[in-house]
Amino acid sequence: LRNGYGETVYCESKTAEQIEGILHSFQKMGSNVMGTRVKPEQYTYLKERFPELIYHPEARIIMLMDHPVEQVGMVAVCTAGTSDIPVAEEAALTAEFFGSRVDRIFDVGVAGIHRLLARTEEIRKANCVVAVAGMEGALGSVMAGLVENPVIAVPTSVGYGASFGGVSALLTMLNSCAEGMATVNIDNGFGAGYMANQINHLAVGAGKKEA
Amino acid sequence: LRNGYGETVYCESKTAEQIEGILHSFQKMGSNVMGTRVKPEQYTYLKERFPELIYHPEARIIMLMDHPVEQVGMVAVCTAGTSDIPVAEEAALTAEFFGSRVDRIFDVGVAGIHRLLARTEEIRKANCVVAVAGMEGALGSVMAGLVENPVIAVPTSVGYGASFGGVSALLTMLNSCAEGMATVNIDNGFGAGYMANQINHLAVGAGKKEA
Amino acid sequence: LRNGYGETVYCESKTAEQIEGILHSFQKMGSNVMGTRVKPEQYTYLKERFPELIYHPEARIIMLMDHPVEQVGMVAVCTAGTSDIPVAEEAALTAEFFGSRVDRIFDVGVAGIHRLLARTEEIRKANCVVAVAGMEGALGSVMAGLVENPVIAVPTSVGYGASFGGVSALLTMLNSCAEGMATVNIDNGFGAGYMANQINHLAVGAGKKEA
Amino acid sequence: LRNGYGETVYCESKTAEQIEGILHSFQKMGSNVMGTRVKPEQYTYLKERFPELIYHPEARIIMLMDHPVEQVGMVAVCTAGTSDIPVAEEAALTAEFFGSRVDRIFDVGVAGIHRLLARTEEIRKANCVVAVAGMEGALGSVMAGLVENPVIAVPTSVGYGASFGGVSALLTMLNSCAEGMATVNIDNGFGAGYMANQINHLAVGAGKKEA
Amino acid sequence: LRNGYGETVYCESKTAEQIEGILHSFQKMGSNVMGTRVKPEQYTYLKERFPELIYHPEARIIMLMDHPVEQVGMVAVCTAGTSDIPVAEEAALTAEFFGSRVDRIFDVGVAGIHRLLARTEEIRKANCVVAVAGMEGALGSVMAGLVENPVIAVPTSVGYGASFGGVSALLTMLNSCAEGMATVNIDNGFGAGYMANQINHLAVGAGKKEA
Amino acid sequence: LRNGYGETVYCESKTAEQIEGILHSFQKMGSNVMGTRVKPEQYTYLKERFPELIYHPEARIIMLMDHPVEQVGMVAVCTAGTSDIPVAEEAALTAEFFGSRVDRIFDVGVAGIHRLLARTEEIRKANCVVAVAGMEGALGSVMAGLVENPVIAVPTSVGYGASFGGVSALLTMLNSCAEGMATVNIDNGFGAGYMANQINHLAVGAGKKEA
Amino acid sequence: LRNGYGETVYCESKTAEQIEGILHSFQKMGSNVMGTRVKPEQYTYLKERFPELIYHPEARIIMLMDHPVEQVGMVAVCTAGTSDIPVAEEAALTAEFFGSRVDRIFDVGVAGIHRLLARTEEIRKANCVVAVAGMEGALGSVMAGLVENPVIAVPTSVGYGASFGGVSALLTMLNSCAEGMATVNIDNGFGAGYMANQINHLAVGAGKKEA
Amino acid sequence: LRNGYGETVYCESKTAEQIEGILHSFQKMGSNVMGTRVKPEQYTYLKERFPELIYHPEARIIMLMDHPVEQVGMVAVCTAGTSDIPVAEEAALTAEFFGSRVDRIFDVGVAGIHRLLARTEEIRKANCVVAVAGMEGALGSVMAGLVENPVIAVPTSVGYGASFGGVSALLTMLNSCAEGMATVNIDNGFGAGYMANQINHLAVGAGKKEA
Ligand SMILES: Nc1ncnc2c1ncn2[C@@H]1O[C@H](COP(=O)(O)O)[C@@H](O)[C@H]1O
Ligand SMILES: Nc1ncnc2c1ncn2[C@@H]1O[C@H](COP(=O)(O)O)[C@@H](O)[C@H]1O
Ligand SMILES: Nc1ncnc2c1ncn2[C@@H]1O[C@H](COP(=O)(O)O)[C@@H](O)[C@H]1O
Ligand SMILES: Nc1ncnc2c1ncn2[C@@H]1O[C@H](COP(=O)(O)O)[C@@H](O)[C@H]1O
Ligand SMILES: [Mg+2]
Ligand SMILES: [Mg+2]
Ligand SMILES: [Mg+2]
Ligand SMILES: [Mg+2]
Ligand SMILES: [Mg+2]
Ligand SMILES: [Mg+2]
Ligand SMILES: [Mg+2]
Ligand SMILES: [Mg+2]
Repeated sequence: LRNGYGETVYCESKTAEQIEGILHSFQKMGSNVMGTRVKPEQYTYLKERFPELIYHPEARIIMLMDHPVEQVGMVAVCTAGTSDIPVAEEAALTAEFFGSRVDRIFDVGVAGIHRLLARTEEIRKANCVVAVAGMEGALGSVMAGLVENPVIAVPTSVGYGASFGGVSALLTMLNSCAEGMATVNIDNGFGAGYMANQINHLAVGAGKKEA
Repeated sequence: LRNGYGETVYCESKTAEQIEGILHSFQKMGSNVMGTRVKPEQYTYLKERFPELIYHPEARIIMLMDHPVEQVGMVAVCTAGTSDIPVAEEAALTAEFFGSRVDRIFDVGVAGIHRLLARTEEIRKANCVVAVAGMEGALGSVMAGLVENPVIAVPTSVGYGASFGGVSALLTMLNSCAEGMATVNIDNGFGAGYMANQINHLAVGAGKKEA
Repeated sequence: LRNGYGETVYCESKTAEQIEGILHSFQKMGSNVMGTRVKPEQYTYLKERFPELIYHPEARIIMLMDHPVEQVGMVAVCTAGTSDIPVAEEAALTAEFFGSRVDRIFDVGVAGIHRLLARTEEIRKANCVVAVAGMEGALGSVMAGLVENPVIAVPTSVGYGASFGGVSALLTMLNSCAEGMATVNIDNGFGAGYMANQINHLAVGAGKKEA
Repeated sequence: LRNGYGETVYCESKTAEQIEGILHSFQKMGSNVMGTRVKPEQYTYLKERFPELIYHPEARIIMLMDHPVEQVGMVAVCTAGTSDIPVAEEAALTAEFFGSRVDRIFDVGVAGIHRLLARTEEIRKANCVVAVAGMEGALGSVMAGLVENPVIAVPTSVGYGASFGGVSALLTMLNSCAEGMATVNIDNGFGAGYMANQINHLAVGAGKKEA
Repeated sequence: LRNGYGETVYCESKTAEQIEGILHSFQKMGSNVMGTRVKPEQYTYLKERFPELIYHPEARIIMLMDHPVEQVGMVAVCTAGTSDIPVAEEAALTAEFFGSRVDRIFDVGVAGIHRLLARTEEIRKANCVVAVAGMEGALGSVMAGLVENPVIAVPTSVGYGASFGGVSALLTMLNSCAEGMATVNIDNGFGAGYMANQINHLAVGAGKKEA
Repeated sequence: LRNGYGETVYCESKTAEQIEGILHSFQKMGSNVMGTRVKPEQYTYLKERFPELIYHPEARIIMLMDHPVEQVGMVAVCTAGTSDIPVAEEAALTAEFFGSRVDRIFDVGVAGIHRLLARTEEIRKANCVVAVAGMEGALGSVMAGLVENPVIAVPTSVGYGASFGGVSALLTMLNSCAEGMATVNIDNGFGAGYMANQINHLAVGAGKKEA
Repeated sequence: LRNGYGETVYCESKTAEQIEGILHSFQKMGSNVMGTRVKPEQYTYLKERFPELIYHPEARIIMLMDHPVEQVGMVAVCTAGTSDIPVAEEAALTAEFFGSRVDRIFDVGVAGIHRLLARTEEIRKANCVVAVAGMEGALGSVMAGLVENPVIAVPTSVGYGASFGGVSALLTMLNSCAEGMATVNIDNGFGAGYMANQINHLAVGAGKKEA
Repeated sequence: LRNGYGETVYCESKTAEQIEGILHSFQKMGSNVMGTRVKPEQYTYLKERFPELIYHPEARIIMLMDHPVEQVGMVAVCTAGTSDIPVAEEAALTAEFFGSRVDRIFDVGVAGIHRLLARTEEIRKANCVVAVAGMEGALGSVMAGLVENPVIAVPTSVGYGASFGGVSALLTMLNSCAEGMATVNIDNGFGAGYMANQINHLAVGAGKKEA
């Protein structure tokens, strides 16, 4: 890990007891720990055993932060709609967990392009942009055309009918005509936040020194 | 037909001889005739028999215009890239054939959003907009957000890899979050031009009177 | 918006509290407001706060109509079967909300073609036709062949097996051999009703004057 | 085989020499033989060796008819467009080869429903109907709604874009709301003609006696 | 209908009240009525209003048989496994409802080919065979190779993983190398039973006379 | 490798010069070498440089056999049709190259099940069976039901329409209800032959000793 | 069966009563019996009737072992993650039921390649390896490159978004560049365990003698 | 652009004349220019007009380098096989064009994992890694597990059968369990090289200063 003390656990298909064990062992090793895809009932069980545990219900993330983490540089996390916010929060919290400052810019989808243009200067300040969008997923392309730094696009499963659970947005992003964009799996806010943090740390110079 | 004297022939899988026969019979009935998907060798054969035949090679359209057609109102035909122009020309020529004035606005794709914004006022003057785009196909959504009148989106088969012969653009357009847009088949410039002309004629009032 | 005072909210993934806030702000701005994809429990919550709120349970639409809207022209909304009616109602109510008169012609699917033919004259009176069909989705093609004005086809997710949640009907509609038809997303009654209203207003001339 | 002396060879991936051998051995066994998917160069080679060989180039079928076959009953073979005729001819010739009388009713697609209705009485006389259509493929449904006897639907690969090589028509046919229809593979005129002949012979009573 | 007094209602998306109304009106018209895809709670409601109503829970079929129907000829309904039986029963009861005698031959899948071969003579007695199979769906091909009369193949959604809800079996059946088979939609026992009955009546001669 | 001196080269996307280099280096290392997917022009070039090179044009395989290989045990390679033979030959030659005896049993597809049953005893003698089939691909299931030893199924791209380049056969094989079968990629005769040889050598005991 | 006394029942779509009957009849015939895909409530019912019944809840397997089975040779069952363990247990228990010794090596996915490399020597001791993985499914390829004996790859439905219920892992495995691997259906631990046992018995020589 | 003087042209669907014009105008503006997807005949035409033009035939790239570009930092471009090299070269040359130093590490696919492990130290020196792979596409996951810096994965269309023109590799990459990877379109070496260069420049600090 970039900053030496962050571990992640993918909790989707683990029992609360299994997660408890993993948290304990990482804690003993001196790491902060973050869990993704945590259901409320898993949290309830874990909170009794780890009173300092923090839960972000929208992003379904838990964090055990035994060690303070300084947040440096800047990552912008943007969404097309409000339904994309849970995935965006997964990305934003992941980047913060690993030591990035994050600017959240939500609900700037391309069907109302002027809301996005009004925020362009702010977005350009980030070392890396995460663009989260479902349905037609066009935010990534427009964004990559507006900023100079890398854009990581996250398709979401928001939509119905021919959105096919995020496939429409995924294809849009993969086929972008704009330069400087790459894509992660549908709803994978974690993956986007992780890579945005890597890039942000390379940019602020922390990366090189610790490697 | 709206204006009483236009017929179309889909020439893709017809022999030159078959097309010749159809042109003759429509001509006798007093109609203008337009053929789509016409290959150069088909044109060469037909030109010898119909010296007044006009060929638009990029759009692969032939026209037999025995009767002058007045072009009224305004349809805007826009493309994301230069590779989308053949499909756009099919749409534009179809709308013109049936009596619409057409404004061509090409190469205004969303990866360079400012080129599109610079033409917004012009596009808003049209009674109907045709938005032609391949690859990520985001032009339709952005356009429908910018104009008040109906947008007909045409996905094109331009692209490679996960564009899947136009499927990516098609899905983007079907999933648009913007209001006032409907979609036709991949590469179906004819269908878009035809419907844009219908709407344009309804708007200029010719429709009601002739029906 | 065409008539200056209609706004819409897509309620699928919003909390009742979020919708409440949005309704309030649009109401203050002097707009009528329509919400789509509203679940009964969302309505129950909102009805207590907005006693004048109207709910159309089949179409899952709510309306706050502070300002009377005159309904002009004519839009025909047709379905192949009875299972397609919820989507058709979404289209019809949307068109009415924005000021169109609507003629509902349900259960005229192509497997019993004479029921459809019996209504042809009536359908031809509309400035725009919305054709709603699931399963094989052939209503759009037959309709577009019967009427002169534009047809907006809405595939529905009605069916089983190889209907693939509406994909079969969607493909049928995109591939239509008939002239004058465009398609919206599966189950997107709203989108079809919105565009039908645009076309209808262009035809009655309101469009041009207000633009 | 129903009438005791008909064999078929699928020639797509066989060399002319291989087909020659198969024709010889079936001929010796006293059978008529039909070959499908025969390319012109295969025919040229075979014609020199079997002077009595007949070639139907549009259907790509060869026939060696050493034994006269009486054609009984009636099968109707219908197409939506002219591009569907090669597949329809494969069906018609197959049914004729096995002893069915065939009525060809071409170019009666649903976008111009009145052409189809004008032929309804004629079609109803058949013991079995083969409905051949590409693109939206709606002919099958409308047909099955019009006639009482079984309909065998054949999707064709005619079309472009979202027709996906016949998949659109195939899905339309599988999802039909009409009673009394079943479907064969894309472009499989042979399979439809074969089964139509089976049904026709069951109806004329020849079947029971010979079995 | 073949025998003059049978009507069917597809109950999947109808309320019990709606079905009640339809049953009443068909009953008044002097028809027997069959309902498919009937849920137990729908049946409970209807049974109170129509005491003579019969329910086949496995096939999810209800029948109101005011008029006795003679069952003639023979249709064989076969399944590959026991999980395919509900779909097979839908087919068998449909054929019986319309006046066919039915021979049920279940659990003769191709992975144990000798069980199928042991029943071949029996199956060959039928005028039409319905072959119901999920997963690999190979029963249809083997069956069509064994019998002379037409085979109607019904893919079922039985299976997991790459069976894709019946798509695997559907494709197997569409691609059969055997002659004399056509396919209906996934799980469409009704459609297969209906067409098998049509063919059976053509064979016993009742068809022609009553038409 | 099992027998210590066999190497393989996948030649599809290599130049003749590149293959030449690879053959030389393996030859120097004392290995026999086999090349797959070799085009005739590649062979012509290579034959001039390696006069002892053997070419199997149907299987598109070249072999440089500097060291004699004893063929032991038995692998059965079966096909459904004649069009599947090139893929079957790729499997058979691969197994022979690595030291297996091979029994070729071609054209025993399930549409004529008795041809397959007639060979059952012979097939059961093999330690491993390779079942090669396109279109409906049902051979694997029937085979695995008939024999006790493992079956490796190879779908082929033979077919048209809904065979989708081998996908239909692939799905059939993956969904088999029969025990003791696994599947390789479409047209991957090499992979099947390689694994059949592994199993055959384990069975004859050579495997354990040499490992 | 290899060892003369093992039978299996696929319980997914059978009632507890049906399973009870099948268990009884196999027991009477003197066979051990194993049931797969058994739900807890099915087990509860059966346990009352067969007190000696053993249930493996994670693998959803029941066993009636009236006859002791000696476990010989070695099969390695490996997983990429912890979520793949239920499928792996289905494979391992199946192989054990039929008389194979099994080595379980879990959580050795390729994203942390050194955990896998640390176990290579152990894995190489097996006569056959089962590689179970979801999401990207790369374990199979890496494994087949590391070991000399056959690898049976099992894709699992673990994952989200573009994992498409196991399709991603399935395609990865089918397209492997490594020699000596074949694939079974998504989540088909049973099929892999069965075939691994076949191969293992061929290797230890028991196979030949008993056949 | 990062370094102020690089422009790119996508030449796939442009005429040589069109490209000529674009090169001229960028040259006049003082930019270096790079063209991608350039066919040999396009190059021949252009070379006569721009004698200083450089062509990289494998990568299908042309370059007009009027201004020297310093190459800084380090990007590693890796491939699984030799068939992936053209796409890798497109990535490498793009990164070099924009001012990155590039380390090419080809043919290190996961089926022979030790070749990849032998190069790990070298790869870790790069600020960003491009991982190019077709068929099973597992290189990306293994790579991302081995290095700390971001990995950009490029699926290629190399393969056959169920590789579906690169879809298999694409899905593998999107579903990776490894942290720190994002994916671009199939065969999109340009996009990967562009983004790798962005990241590399952020890391060497040039980015911040020029922004
Ligand atoms: N939401 C997520 N989506 C995809 N991968 C994740 C997610 N959360 C964590 N991961 C990855 O999963 C790994 C942990 O997996 P596990 O050992 O199963 O908990 C982490 O190191 C991450 O690489
Ligand atoms: N390029 C096109 N794409 C789709 N449909 C077309 C096209 N050109 C013409 N058509 C339609 O095809 C009809 C003529 O078909 P046909 O009778 O086969 O020539 C016209 O009336 C149009 O509805
Ligand atoms: N056009 C066709 N499409 C599908 N199946 C066919 C076709 N023509 C012939 N067949 C079938 O292929 C069998 C002959 O196959 P073969 O032995 O390979 O020549 C015939 O008995 C028919 O079942
Ligand atoms: N299970 C079924 N699957 C497909 N179509 C059916 C089924 N049951 C009935 N139908 C068809 O649906 C028609 C009745 O539809 P409805 O008027 O909506 O009740 C019948 O005439 C049949 O054509
Ligand atoms: Mg940019
Ligand atoms: Mg608009
Ligand atoms: Mg019309
Ligand atoms: Mg009918
Ligand atoms: Mg038969
Ligand atoms: Mg077996
Ligand atoms: Mg190996
Ligand atoms: Mg890493």
